[in-house]
Amino acid sequence: MEVDIVISGGLLLTMDDNYTVIKGSLIAIEGDKIVYVGQSTGINEQIFSAKKIIDATGCLVLPGLVNTHTHAPMVLFRGVADDLSLMEWLNNYIFPLEMKYVTKDTVYWGARLACAEMILSGTTTFCDGYFYPGRIARAAIESGLRIVLGLGFFDSDEDIDSAAKKHSATARRFIEKWQHISPLVTPALFPHAPYTCRPEIMRRLKQVADEYEALFITHLSETKEEVDTINERYGLTPVKLLYSHGILDERTIAVHCNWLNEEEIGLLASSKAKVSHNAESGMKLASGACPIHELLSRGITVGIGTDGCASNNDHDLVREMGTVAYLHKHITGDPTTLDARSVLALATRMGARVLGLEREIGSIEVGKKADIILIDTRTPRLWPLYNPYSQIVYAACGENVTTTICNGRILMENRRLVNLDLDEIMSQVESVAETIRQDELIRSRFD
Amino acid sequence: MEVDIVISGGLLLTMDDNYTVIKGSLIAIEGDKIVYVGQSTGINEQIFSAKKIIDATGCLVLPGLVNTHTHAPMVLFRGVADDLSLMEWLNNYIFPLEMKYVTKDTVYWGARLACAEMILSGTTTFCDGYFYPGRIARAAIESGLRIVLGLGFFDSDEDIDSAAKKHSATARRFIEKWQHISPLVTPALFPHAPYTCRPEIMRRLKQVADEYEALFITHLSETKEEVDTINERYGLTPVKLLYSHGILDERTIAVHCNWLNEEEIGLLASSKAKVSHNAESGMKLASGACPIHELLSRGITVGIGTDGCASNNDHDLVREMGTVAYLHKHITGDPTTLDARSVLALATRMGARVLGLEREIGSIEVGKKADIILIDTRTPRLWPLYNPYSQIVYAACGENVTTTICNGRILMENRRLVNLDLDEIMSQVESVAETIRQDELIRSRFD
Repeated sequence: MEVDIVISGGLLLTMDDNYTVIKGSLIAIEGDKIVYVGQSTGINEQIFSAKKIIDATGCLVLPGLVNTHTHAPMVLFRGVADDLSLMEWLNNYIFPLEMKYVTKDTVYWGARLACAEMILSGTTTFCDGYFYPGRIARAAIESGLRIVLGLGFFDSDEDIDSAAKKHSATARRFIEKWQHISPLVTPALFPHAPYTCRPEIMRRLKQVADEYEALFITHLSETKEEVDTINERYGLTPVKLLYSHGILDERTIAVHCNWLNEEEIGLLASSKAKVSHNAESGMKLASGACPIHELLSRGITVGIGTDGCASNNDHDLVREMGTVAYLHKHITGDPTTLDARSVLALATRMGARVLGLEREIGSIEVGKKADIILIDTRTPRLWPLYNPYSQIVYAACGENVTTTICNGRILMENRRLVNLDLDEIMSQVESVAETIRQDELIRSRFD
Repeated sequence: MEVDIVISGGLLLTMDDNYTVIKGSLIAIEGDKIVYVGQSTGINEQIFSAKKIIDATGCLVLPGLVNTHTHAPMVLFRGVADDLSLMEWLNNYIFPLEMKYVTKDTVYWGARLACAEMILSGTTTFCDGYFYPGRIARAAIESGLRIVLGLGFFDSDEDIDSAAKKHSATARRFIEKWQHISPLVTPALFPHAPYTCRPEIMRRLKQVADEYEALFITHLSETKEEVDTINERYGLTPVKLLYSHGILDERTIAVHCNWLNEEEIGLLASSKAKVSHNAESGMKLASGACPIHELLSRGITVGIGTDGCASNNDHDLVREMGTVAYLHKHITGDPTTLDARSVLALATRMGARVLGLEREIGSIEVGKKADIILIDTRTPRLWPLYNPYSQIVYAACGENVTTTICNGRILMENRRLVNLDLDEIMSQVESVAETIRQDELIRSRFD
């Protein structure tokens, strides 16, 4: 049988429903799909005549990681304004910098850099929302990564009906444009947050999303201040506000959810809304921590995300997994909270469910898309190997990912990026950064 | 002027008293010492005729990192027993495994592996305590790393006076043997903890340490249970117990300190005792978190440590720095807590002070030992570069360290370990691990 790629000899963590683990595994890929998964017997290897054979000896083989929340182009602002209060960070640095330096061009190059960073650390799917999403989509497609692409909305004080009509038309055009352009791209709507978009506008956008069965994403209950603001403005907590407007359902992703009361957890559970937990971002900005141990026990589907690099400051989902585990053991005071396998599930099969892509990705099974990464354990920090899940979550970092395959295409092999002009990308980003460094705002910060 | 090594062109973070930063820096090393630090002018570069020139273009140049607490040979048990309650982890797995598999030989090979891991992630000095410390010392010396080597003590119910005499004699022999053997080794005494050593024994060992001006190290207030135990047994909290026995002073290192009341923080401050904070270990085992933001504001000298790899599970002090920052911003609810530079200080100049080595290491200055690392920023996760401290603490991981120099000797260059037979080390550790995997205790865990 002729196939495109065979991966043989690795310790396979399928992350399927039974968490099947196969020592000395054999995977065959034809086009964008996985066509065989089994144990390598020597005999079955001869069945496949592959154009490309990847020797996975000494490696863990697992599904490509799913980053359920980021703002990829924000790598442009990585480290430019850290260790500040949230409002100073946002109002005095990030927003003014975005006003000045976010263009179609800078978004494209920032997204290209972010994609390179993700490939280098094993992420094959990311859910993004930022200005000029078309440029981000182009960057993802050219990089070979899978993307759920949110079109962002900020509200103004325009009359509700005309604002809703205008936004709805924009939303329809966006979804229609992107829904069939590339198998790598899934368009979605992403009104920023209940404190920047009125609930009626959100409701109308949710209806548009529903027409197309598209995802509806929003930041929700990120900070204590947001909860207070929404409570003052509407007399409801943020989750309850969205629930009362019929916005929460299984195609809604609530990002952050750091401040939830019991009732709100119940509403998220009963509505089957999905949650994206951003541990490092919440810790670094001191905005809070989503109680995912409780959410998971209530059957809520939770994924993890890095958030943008102005808040995190990297796209390393391997490192993020470790932080997620540490944080929730610390919060609960219980070291059995979120074992390593459960954390890897958040970054793979659960992440895929958050993005509604569970039929295509999130596990290594016949018929699924070939989104696969390899982690070479033959390095001191990953040696010796007893428990592969522990090794990934507690000992590895993104740089230990050696090979990244997305949609059947090899994007990195043995740490070498394939068909990607990294020098050009870094040089383009550097020229934006050089301008930003000369900005009075930033010069004064570093003088 | 003839020198051994010149490092030129990097962005130097000296971590000296003024936190001097030098763009396009020039460092000259002669023997084990730094003999010149300045800006590269082209002219001064010609003054030095170096046997070896390291081009640091695109790199951050900083002091080698100081890991103030680990049990290096415990890499043997990396990931063998995670996600368990603390007592189950310790009593049902770690202690039985140690009884069976800890020998002079396994300690040596475990320590060699740990040293390789540290070199690969930029640590040049570590403070260790484990069985067969002589073998750990040998591993450190052969690896070229600087070590503060604690001789461990566990008490029994033997009569106090004869136990103290016996332990004191052992302690004297140990210090006298190791204090002049190698410039890389500083011997110390390390009674395990107040719940495993009677205070009177600790006091007598502290007197021996004082005779030699040696460090006295102990685990202290790691868990809530420990505080309760000590309170029941002695009617005092752990810190107060040690204070009341005259054990706390500037040559005492209290490791963990996760559970401190106001009075105890005062006693640590007034006694000038040093504290080693192990964030990831405390989070992963859910044993607690040392309130270092408070300790630092009281002038207490704090370093950070990874703890052993059965609890952490790696020796990556770069990653640990990020976790330390995230944790304390989260705990205080304040994103300005522990800015990136302060966190790098904990891992360099402050760590050196914890270990009483501040005159020799911890910063890059003329006259100090040449313990220097390079982090190459020309990679997507560290690009673009605005703030070097942020980049190290919030975006880097240990694998981004490209060159490691300790005591004037290059141990790693461009990610290649120098003069170190990694295959032999990994194969020796693997043969121990293979035996452990066959152990009934472990087989049942993974079946």
